[in-house]
Amino acid sequence: MELKMLEANFLSLPKEFGFRTSYSTSLVGLHSSPKPSSSKVICSKGTNSGSINKVGTSNLLFQSKINGMNEAISRTLDYFDDEYGGVIVNPDKLPSNPNVFASMLQSSLSRWTIKGKKGIWLKLPSEYSELVPIAVKEGFQYHHAERGYVMLTYWIPEGPSMLPANASHQVGVGGFVINDKNEVLVVQEKYCAPPFVGFWKIPTGFIQEAEEIYTGTVREVKEETGIDTEFVEVIAFRHAQNMAFEKSDLFFIGMLKPLSTEIKVDDHEILAAKWMPLVEFVKQPWIQEDSMLKKVTDIFIARMGKKYCGLFAHHLVSKFDDRSSTLYYNVVNTQDVNCNGT
Amino acid sequence: MELKMLEANFLSLPKEFGFRTSYSTSLVGLHSSPKPSSSKVICSKGTNSGSINKVGTSNLLFQSKINGMNEAISRTLDYFDDEYGGVIVNPDKLPSNPNVFASMLQSSLSRWTIKGKKGIWLKLPSEYSELVPIAVKEGFQYHHAERGYVMLTYWIPEGPSMLPANASHQVGVGGFVINDKNEVLVVQEKYCAPPFVGFWKIPTGFIQEAEEIYTGTVREVKEETGIDTEFVEVIAFRHAQNMAFEKSDLFFIGMLKPLSTEIKVDDHEILAAKWMPLVEFVKQPWIQEDSMLKKVTDIFIARMGKKYCGLFAHHLVSKFDDRSSTLYYNVVNTQDVNCNGT
Repeated sequence: MELKMLEANFLSLPKEFGFRTSYSTSLVGLHSSPKPSSSKVICSKGTNSGSINKVGTSNLLFQSKINGMNEAISRTLDYFDDEYGGVIVNPDKLPSNPNVFASMLQSSLSRWTIKGKKGIWLKLPSEYSELVPIAVKEGFQYHHAERGYVMLTYWIPEGPSMLPANASHQVGVGGFVINDKNEVLVVQEKYCAPPFVGFWKIPTGFIQEAEEIYTGTVREVKEETGIDTEFVEVIAFRHAQNMAFEKSDLFFIGMLKPLSTEIKVDDHEILAAKWMPLVEFVKQPWIQEDSMLKKVTDIFIARMGKKYCGLFAHHLVSKFDDRSSTLYYNVVNTQDVNCNGT
Repeated sequence: MELKMLEANFLSLPKEFGFRTSYSTSLVGLHSSPKPSSSKVICSKGTNSGSINKVGTSNLLFQSKINGMNEAISRTLDYFDDEYGGVIVNPDKLPSNPNVFASMLQSSLSRWTIKGKKGIWLKLPSEYSELVPIAVKEGFQYHHAERGYVMLTYWIPEGPSMLPANASHQVGVGGFVINDKNEVLVVQEKYCAPPFVGFWKIPTGFIQEAEEIYTGTVREVKEETGIDTEFVEVIAFRHAQNMAFEKSDLFFIGMLKPLSTEIKVDDHEILAAKWMPLVEFVKQPWIQEDSMLKKVTDIFIARMGKKYCGLFAHHLVSKFDDRSSTLYYNVVNTQDVNCNGT
């Protein structure tokens, strides 16, 4: 059920990580202007996606006038073929008239069915919201949406859709910042349920679009406390299910070195921030009485005592995609690591 | 800009991780039937979200007949207040008539504005797709969509919306499975660009909704090769940006123990699978010539030689949310770990 594609980009080489032929599509490029993409499929499981490999014609099949629809009924929507036998409708050439769209969509679906097409990707920018109910009536389903557009899909063959799923995870970060006086940088958030008022916690937040884990952690610490930091490593991460919007949640806990000392609280979000002696931080009942918080704190203390290895962020460019991505791993080639685990 | 909320559930206790007061909302429960939720805000940065804390009335303000709209113009949509001064429109009590909806939406927005409401969450199931263009015309924006519904939002106050973002990441997994003959379980995928035909790779895939990393890895290995495995640990992970649908991608590389030997290839997705001597696997030019694949393979080999510690999955229940989530970390309390890093 997985769709495996290459990310689209504008380099000429085929791109891919190689361990996983990650799904990604030229749909990325369709936010503003779709382009014939240079993306190539490296390997796939044979499912259908949205990578563009050639531009479709405007598909004027025949001209006629039926029911006053002028030529609309004879025309299919402008589209691109994808590399999996599917179709990406060109969002820049959508008719604005809903009736014309309805007619063209029907003609298009008939034609695509005859041609043996599989998955249809229909991206409707906000200004074309009147076309949404028409597409839904034709059997299109919502796939995902972002500010500015909704993406609908249609799976022509019999059987379940093989189109890839939408993004599944939120990613959050939290930063342990400790100074040379053994004090942890902590905050109190502005709105707390009564039992948790007074709980001093590490700065946390969500990473932003296309932001690195280490960058996001440094940014959140800075935003909440005004402290500049250098990211050292990820010491652990937590995976939780069924969080916001039924999505899952990955939360990376980092260790950071402070580069400044003066705290400046973000009044919008944070009630208070301070440097708190580690001993006091650990003694807080919220930590002592909670197995998750206790474990994370233990890991942090072990890491400080050099009895724990976190994961370092390494930038590596893969020839498969010519892009720098970040591989997180711990120390290799150390002779005395004893992985007893568990 | 982060919104911090508790996940909704049906237990009576307030729930939260504590290191990060993770955003999550009772919107989860609105897929079928919204319920007054027991979710409580633990801490928040004061932004607006969709956690329900009390059920709104049906808000019959006054009755009148204007422009033949009967009573519609006088009524607001059925809604729930959330804990951040916002509103969640009840998707089970939407009017099916678009004109009635348009009128009620306008009345509602006026009323919510007077009341000082902030963010409005409007979930429109597929069967209400005719209401989408009406909401967009009123200034609602797409927030996210899943099969079956699209979620729109509206931010009433001046200034940028403080509503939380949609899920940002796809999560993939790959599994190194090695048997006692030092053979790695490898596959060739069905559709490969010419330069990569013949590349033997580890089984990979995306994790499914609410699936654990270790479960997803075991499942993908089983689906692609028929081999049963036991997950040992995460040895590294890769973070890449701007992949499918402009989302980011986290790819976790796991080490697994085989529990069976007989390969059964998934014909739909996989061209071939086999046990390949580790030496041969490593020698492949795709690995030798690529810094990313080479590094991951080196880590795997170091791990086999006990010269590397991966991250083990530990189930921990936090009293903040009473749920079992998974914390990944490596060996603690080992005396001889030397974290020289980098």
